[in-house]
Amino acid sequence: MKAELISIGTEILLGDIVNTNAQFLAKELALLGIDVYYQSVIGDNEERILKAFKEAFDRCDIIITTGGLGPTQDDLTKELGAKYFNKKMILHEPSLEWIKKYLDINNEEVLEANKNQAYFPEGSIILPNENGTAPGAIISENNKTLIILPGPPKEMKSMFSNHVTKYLSKLTKDIIKSKTLRIFGIGESLMAKKLDDIIKNSKNPTVAPYAKEYEVTLRITAKEKSEDKCDELIKNKVDQIKGIIGEYIYGEDEVSLEEVVAKLLCDKKLSISTAESCTGGMISSTLIEYPGISEIFKEGVVTYSNESKIKRLGVKEETLNKFGAVSEETAREMVIGIAEGLNTDIAISSTGIAGPGGGTKDKPVGLVYIGIYIKGNVKVEKLNLRGDREAVRKKATLSALNLLRKEIIRNY
Amino acid sequence: MKAELISIGTEILLGDIVNTNAQFLAKELALLGIDVYYQSVIGDNEERILKAFKEAFDRCDIIITTGGLGPTQDDLTKELGAKYFNKKMILHEPSLEWIKKYLDINNEEVLEANKNQAYFPEGSIILPNENGTAPGAIISENNKTLIILPGPPKEMKSMFSNHVTKYLSKLTKDIIKSKTLRIFGIGESLMAKKLDDIIKNSKNPTVAPYAKEYEVTLRITAKEKSEDKCDELIKNKVDQIKGIIGEYIYGEDEVSLEEVVAKLLCDKKLSISTAESCTGGMISSTLIEYPGISEIFKEGVVTYSNESKIKRLGVKEETLNKFGAVSEETAREMVIGIAEGLNTDIAISSTGIAGPGGGTKDKPVGLVYIGIYIKGNVKVEKLNLRGDREAVRKKATLSALNLLRKEIIRNY
Repeated sequence: MKAELISIGTEILLGDIVNTNAQFLAKELALLGIDVYYQSVIGDNEERILKAFKEAFDRCDIIITTGGLGPTQDDLTKELGAKYFNKKMILHEPSLEWIKKYLDINNEEVLEANKNQAYFPEGSIILPNENGTAPGAIISENNKTLIILPGPPKEMKSMFSNHVTKYLSKLTKDIIKSKTLRIFGIGESLMAKKLDDIIKNSKNPTVAPYAKEYEVTLRITAKEKSEDKCDELIKNKVDQIKGIIGEYIYGEDEVSLEEVVAKLLCDKKLSISTAESCTGGMISSTLIEYPGISEIFKEGVVTYSNESKIKRLGVKEETLNKFGAVSEETAREMVIGIAEGLNTDIAISSTGIAGPGGGTKDKPVGLVYIGIYIKGNVKVEKLNLRGDREAVRKKATLSALNLLRKEIIRNY
Repeated sequence: MKAELISIGTEILLGDIVNTNAQFLAKELALLGIDVYYQSVIGDNEERILKAFKEAFDRCDIIITTGGLGPTQDDLTKELGAKYFNKKMILHEPSLEWIKKYLDINNEEVLEANKNQAYFPEGSIILPNENGTAPGAIISENNKTLIILPGPPKEMKSMFSNHVTKYLSKLTKDIIKSKTLRIFGIGESLMAKKLDDIIKNSKNPTVAPYAKEYEVTLRITAKEKSEDKCDELIKNKVDQIKGIIGEYIYGEDEVSLEEVVAKLLCDKKLSISTAESCTGGMISSTLIEYPGISEIFKEGVVTYSNESKIKRLGVKEETLNKFGAVSEETAREMVIGIAEGLNTDIAISSTGIAGPGGGTKDKPVGLVYIGIYIKGNVKVEKLNLRGDREAVRKKATLSALNLLRKEIIRNY
């Protein structure tokens, strides 16, 4: 089974955006055992797109396109798919309803152009788009299959995972299952080194590391005749991996570190307060992303200035003068101040140098102290983080949550 | 002048790496006024690469390849370039010297295979590689030019910038310039409708809308003989667009709404405090992303509970009982409470229902009130946002910042 990827759109052609869609699809198809020998990028141009369809179908069984499904006139992919397969474009009522509902929810007007997004080549399988107004489609005839996906990566990825994988795995007969281990606090290279043997010698299931923006994941993928057999292969491999890097694994599949920590707090009914300096509200905001957090989130404070640390949290002026605002002592007094002031079970504090300015030899940019108050005890962790201001703040936030996760597990 | 990009290598084909080379080259070529209508990715396979050269040269004048210049047997690009142009491969002594020196500096052994990297198609222009052992090459005959670059982005980019740009700028005469307008508070479809005439009828400069996650951009691109002429065309078009949707445009080129607002506050030395409920620290965290904000950011508080709204901000219990926590009145008392308590020029408050639970018929999920305190006056805006919890909170944050931006401009 051979597939080709055709990315359609001027944005990629002009280099305005990186073609991450092609990488995602290439990786997914490899896992499904489908070969990809060509990828291409073309603009929204009728003649070129039709020619590309013809050339690609001379070489392969499946074409996957991304892009060109927007509401405007230059979005041509579906129309040209219909033209290639000699089909009429017909209205798909449920899609029109969905588009109307989606735009209504987002308080946007339904324009005539949006209605175009509900027309598809006759006989298509329609692929719902949970994250936008452009459904996708699959058109198949004479063993040639055209799979049409939207361009925005968020829309494309969830459509592929939720709807296309199943379709493709039927074509390949084997069952493919995978599990993703989510890992925080170790870099990709070091993890790959620790798991060198496992990664190299695992053919079924395969074990593939992926570096995300602030974490690493490992995907274990099994290909077998039955689901049970897949599950068994995956379970054994996961146990083997946990034996080596278990302490870094915070969750499995579609879960975030934030969710794991917020859920732990809610499940154990632990009230929490936050006192943030360099993270500036990112810790509280991240926790509040979790629905139901209102039960246990008592109050957060962003004490960016020294004055505010003293007045709000009772940090001693002496401590600030002697050790500085970015110090273990300040982080400790901040976390005690907020926890005792609000009488919460748990509190988090952060203080650090996010950059780009403000660093010194002794206290360089990226130095961050995280304070955790738990059951009356305080633990302060010193971090040396790398990256720009945003990266330092984001890493400090996630490190604080991971530290809290470990402390809750240890204490409760 | 037309060019095509051919990226060669299994790593990209399998999705192990993202093809950032193509983006870089596409952008550089656009700036040089060279059109790119096709990009493709193929593996290290003789037949496919030769076929791709033939097909591409049927359509264009210049092919730029990246990858396939390594020392191993599966690196074929130069050899196939020679085959395509019917040239012998000959040794380039200075390159061999360079390779030996480079490997010696890096304490690596010179292998027989490395010597292959010093062979080039006869008559090539050799492109030195300051960052690796693989020099590039330019072969040109009968108005067809093949530019062969290495795959590692660091090597490729500096080779392109240092050696290829000069070569190409001699071939082309036009200059391309573009400007991006950044727009918040209007959807892509509605904007496209308002600008329908302009978008359809602008050929030079072109006007292209792009939908980003929470905003929309418009790119105006001019192609002319001189930079001045480009600037003039762009300026006229921007003025025309501003006449229609000016109120939604918050900035130009590489700038974010957050930056624009934080910079306004810093430039005008306006101290600010925040009192957040549903946004949970996202407004403060977003502002604190701006370096230098410490000068004017006084304090933020996340008062997620009623108790905390009363104690910290002095919101009246009566107000909460009568109008509810999510109400214009509460947003007003919150913003007055924080501004007066901390004596800041400006304050922002947020209170709303981010969902997924907690909505009622009268107060549905997505109802958010934003309070802005400025010069002793308070303005409260009611928003009906939808989307999931994350989207509602993010939109509430950006809407608050946009509202503040407009109020600052109006007041100062």
